Amino acid sequence: MTDVQQQKSDTVAAVKHMKWWGWGVEGVAFHHHDKPAFAPFVKKIVGVELSEGHDTGLDFADLVVPASIAAPEVVESLEQIVGPGAVATDDHDRVVHTYGKSIRDLIRIRAGILERVPDVVVYPADEAEVQSIVDLAVASDLVLIPFGGGSNIVGSLEPITTETRTVISLDMGRLDRVLDIDEDSGLARIQAGGQGPDLEAQLNARGWTLGHFPDSFTHSTMGGWVATRSSGMQSDKYGDIADITKGLRVVRPGGVLAIRAVPSASTGPSLREMIIGSEGRLGVITEVTAQVHRLPEKREILAYLFPSWHDGLAAMQAIAESDAHPSVTRVSDAHETAFSFATSKPGKGISQKITDLLPTLLKAKGWDIDAMCLSFIGYEGSPEHVARTQKTVAKIVKANRGMSVGTGPGKLYDQKKFDTPYLRDFFMDHGGAADVSETAAPWSKLRDVSSRVYAAANQAFDQIGKQGWIMGHLSHSYHSGACLYFTFAFEHGSDAEAEYDVVKHAIQQAFIDTGATVSHHHGVGLEHQPWMSQDVSPEGVAVMQGLFDSADPGRVFNPGKVTGA
Amino acid sequence: MTDVQQQKSDTVAAVKHMKWWGWGVEGVAFHHHDKPAFAPFVKKIVGVELSEGHDTGLDFADLVVPASIAAPEVVESLEQIVGPGAVATDDHDRVVHTYGKSIRDLIRIRAGILERVPDVVVYPADEAEVQSIVDLAVASDLVLIPFGGGSNIVGSLEPITTETRTVISLDMGRLDRVLDIDEDSGLARIQAGGQGPDLEAQLNARGWTLGHFPDSFTHSTMGGWVATRSSGMQSDKYGDIADITKGLRVVRPGGVLAIRAVPSASTGPSLREMIIGSEGRLGVITEVTAQVHRLPEKREILAYLFPSWHDGLAAMQAIAESDAHPSVTRVSDAHETAFSFATSKPGKGISQKITDLLPTLLKAKGWDIDAMCLSFIGYEGSPEHVARTQKTVAKIVKANRGMSVGTGPGKLYDQKKFDTPYLRDFFMDHGGAADVSETAAPWSKLRDVSSRVYAAANQAFDQIGKQGWIMGHLSHSYHSGACLYFTFAFEHGSDAEAEYDVVKHAIQQAFIDTGATVSHHHGVGLEHQPWMSQDVSPEGVAVMQGLFDSADPGRVFNPGKVTGA
Repeated sequence: MTDVQQQKSDTVAAVKHMKWWGWGVEGVAFHHHDKPAFAPFVKKIVGVELSEGHDTGLDFADLVVPASIAAPEVVESLEQIVGPGAVATDDHDRVVHTYGKSIRDLIRIRAGILERVPDVVVYPADEAEVQSIVDLAVASDLVLIPFGGGSNIVGSLEPITTETRTVISLDMGRLDRVLDIDEDSGLARIQAGGQGPDLEAQLNARGWTLGHFPDSFTHSTMGGWVATRSSGMQSDKYGDIADITKGLRVVRPGGVLAIRAVPSASTGPSLREMIIGSEGRLGVITEVTAQVHRLPEKREILAYLFPSWHDGLAAMQAIAESDAHPSVTRVSDAHETAFSFATSKPGKGISQKITDLLPTLLKAKGWDIDAMCLSFIGYEGSPEHVARTQKTVAKIVKANRGMSVGTGPGKLYDQKKFDTPYLRDFFMDHGGAADVSETAAPWSKLRDVSSRVYAAANQAFDQIGKQGWIMGHLSHSYHSGACLYFTFAFEHGSDAEAEYDVVKHAIQQAFIDTGATVSHHHGVGLEHQPWMSQDVSPEGVAVMQGLFDSADPGRVFNPGKVTGA
Repeated sequence: MTDVQQQKSDTVAAVKHMKWWGWGVEGVAFHHHDKPAFAPFVKKIVGVELSEGHDTGLDFADLVVPASIAAPEVVESLEQIVGPGAVATDDHDRVVHTYGKSIRDLIRIRAGILERVPDVVVYPADEAEVQSIVDLAVASDLVLIPFGGGSNIVGSLEPITTETRTVISLDMGRLDRVLDIDEDSGLARIQAGGQGPDLEAQLNARGWTLGHFPDSFTHSTMGGWVATRSSGMQSDKYGDIADITKGLRVVRPGGVLAIRAVPSASTGPSLREMIIGSEGRLGVITEVTAQVHRLPEKREILAYLFPSWHDGLAAMQAIAESDAHPSVTRVSDAHETAFSFATSKPGKGISQKITDLLPTLLKAKGWDIDAMCLSFIGYEGSPEHVARTQKTVAKIVKANRGMSVGTGPGKLYDQKKFDTPYLRDFFMDHGGAADVSETAAPWSKLRDVSSRVYAAANQAFDQIGKQGWIMGHLSHSYHSGACLYFTFAFEHGSDAEAEYDVVKHAIQQAFIDTGATVSHHHGVGLEHQPWMSQDVSPEGVAVMQGLFDSADPGRVFNPGKVTGA
């Protein structure tokens, strides 16, 4: 720990950050000693040999961190605003604020690639301090990049490498409170920097929940969710962040853009929907008035099996069309189902339950076990609602040749649902590269999206000369379609980033070519920019660019993200 | 009919327009000869004497219509694009396209006030023609105002009076088809100029419904709904137009801004939500891909009575919080309830039913009949869903001291729901002025909004020295709040517009002062502009203005609307 860090104020020191080289906190890691099927499975699908545990050999001291170019008077001005204990220029803090946690980010940080590191990290305590920082940045031609939990995986947090001005990473971590709950309306005023578990704890203590649980939940923030159009696992019930967000406060040069928390409004083009997804380009989100719900009386996740991907998709669509209102609709394809079995512990969990059922399935139903698909449906609400919804779903599952596997696998899924990034990092420790691509499309196109993504990925694996693996699931159902979420993996060679690019590119282009969108809930950042004009049309990108240019003529607010220019 | 009109092509002649001096079509009018309570009621509440029928004394020939300033070469260029039968410069067509149908519009047109009339009306047949017109307008510095059904009541359609350039009213009436239904996804491609009944007929023929039924339904269009952020009576089930709209095609200078019809996307600030509510300022909407639903097996509207407005509001909130999913939640306050009784026919309908119940209510329940509130709850879906929802609602109604009045009044409401504007015009024929103001607010604020709107309106009536009347209802329930919709009326003096301004201003300001929004679903136009900076903050207006300026630097697209500049 450096002297600078020791000088941090207590509140600043309390701001949580993930480790500089990977997901989550130090000391927590994936292990597979109790999952005997896992290492052979990984060996089989991508040829990677897994040992138990692995020393990454990474040492922060080995990093060559470019010096900060922040002028002393800039640092002094910031210190005058937030106090000297809330401004950091030390290497560790600056490196932690350089990247998000995508595979590309981890490849680079582990390789010591640090082209452009923020020059200074500042931790405002309140909105007034954010306003002063914004006004200073505009007056002094600085660059501001808002930083929440640092979990972004589309390159929204890194400074543009060619940036010659001083770059400030604006860490929102001290604005972490639920300020107020309007218990009559189910509306909570929430500060932008609060991380998922802390916010839920504050809400739960008063009997409420936001109901927003993205994969990144443990390390992402309210402001980050809004800035990237996040969607949580229970979005079928609680909605995407665009549905959840009612009011907003956004610090703009000279004042706060404030949007009233009304349930719906007819006040021209939606400013709320311009801020949502803006990735810092329109100002700094300081406060969100979000709709919250009473904690459900009952909550249960049931697992189901379907004989094929098409049966699983058909069932999810039938559920979306029905009067049932589950909180989660999710079905894995055959590859992801096999992967789930491989990560289970023997004697309990998913694989054992399935193993017990195998003879029945094979003999009585004539299923092809390799085509089988695992599904989770979540239920929340009154016991009557849960019972009724389960009954409706049971009929639909049966009509689509599926069967229930009970609550056991669902409980396990619920416990482990935020652990996948640790597994990704563990895989990376052993020479593997794994990442995700997600999209949304109308129901009529989902089968085509899925099969063409598989074809594209496999062709890309051939192109880079690697044994690769792709798997996917449907999650987040809507009236007219759903989200498809793919995970791909391969053993990388010497240029992991270039190999990754080939595979990622192939999958994203398959989304576009099948009429799907470039992203359902991860955002654009730098990573998804190449497909924006194909997705929202060149005219759409031009209108969006015009919005950014008019709102930020000095290119102070996270320039270069979303639209490029 | 002029020669010019006779030269119209058949398809152009088939485009439906409302009468130039009021709502709806010639020959349809409100009458009260079978509603004996109505005239005394109106006499009592606003002092206006109603006769049966009334000659407005209006003659189109009396209008002094400013001459078109369209240069011959502009008209020729337009004729080259759409054909000579699809360009109109005659007075009648130009006058019909000058205003919407607000009370301010009717006051002006009936007084012969025509400050700035569009110079030419053009009827494109398809998107390619719209593109050519847009490109011509940009190249020749013309003004384009898209025109749907002409039902707007916030001044979105009229040219700015100071406009010195040629103004083209772009009538979308020939683009009136449902192009395609993706039956698997529940998505229909619908042309922007289709009017409500025509579109529903096309959808119904294939077993589908859009489920969008605003008060203006009979004379408003798909494009108009999107351009103004419309909301329909069944929005509790089908959503507002912002929920219904998935894909969009918008003609911009040089090309089409095309948004894919995906159920949700994380592609930066939402272009979809910028176009929605844009009132023509970002280009010309030509096509909407909307989510559609299978026609419900069963559809029923039940009426209920509550002893007070507060009980009614509490019941609506409890329904919104429950697992019930009705299609309509509506409760009138005591004034509007009394008005409903007064417009009923004896021997059937609402009043007779209530009359029959009065002894029971008075004696058994001890209700104050003057405080009583009438509610309609709509149910749509499978018979099981309808039955279950009705059961849930019945419990909530009982818990809030209400009672069911059965299906009779609901059927009547359903038949008459689009007739109110005719009543407004009839009232106007007798020297009355009546208009509406609507808003949305969180549940916690609705009582305050309602009481302060009443106080503001009554103070305004005092100010103009008139006996006035205000009444309201809740409709459109959401998780965190609802829409309140007010109707106000008074006998106007010599300067009806100025008197109207006083009352309208008082009500809109009460919305703002109580934390509600300036409009829930009517839009902004010119009428609601004065409250925009109070509603979405000056910073919000500035960002919106920047969007318009950057997207339309030549101020070609309906300039001056929404933000003023």
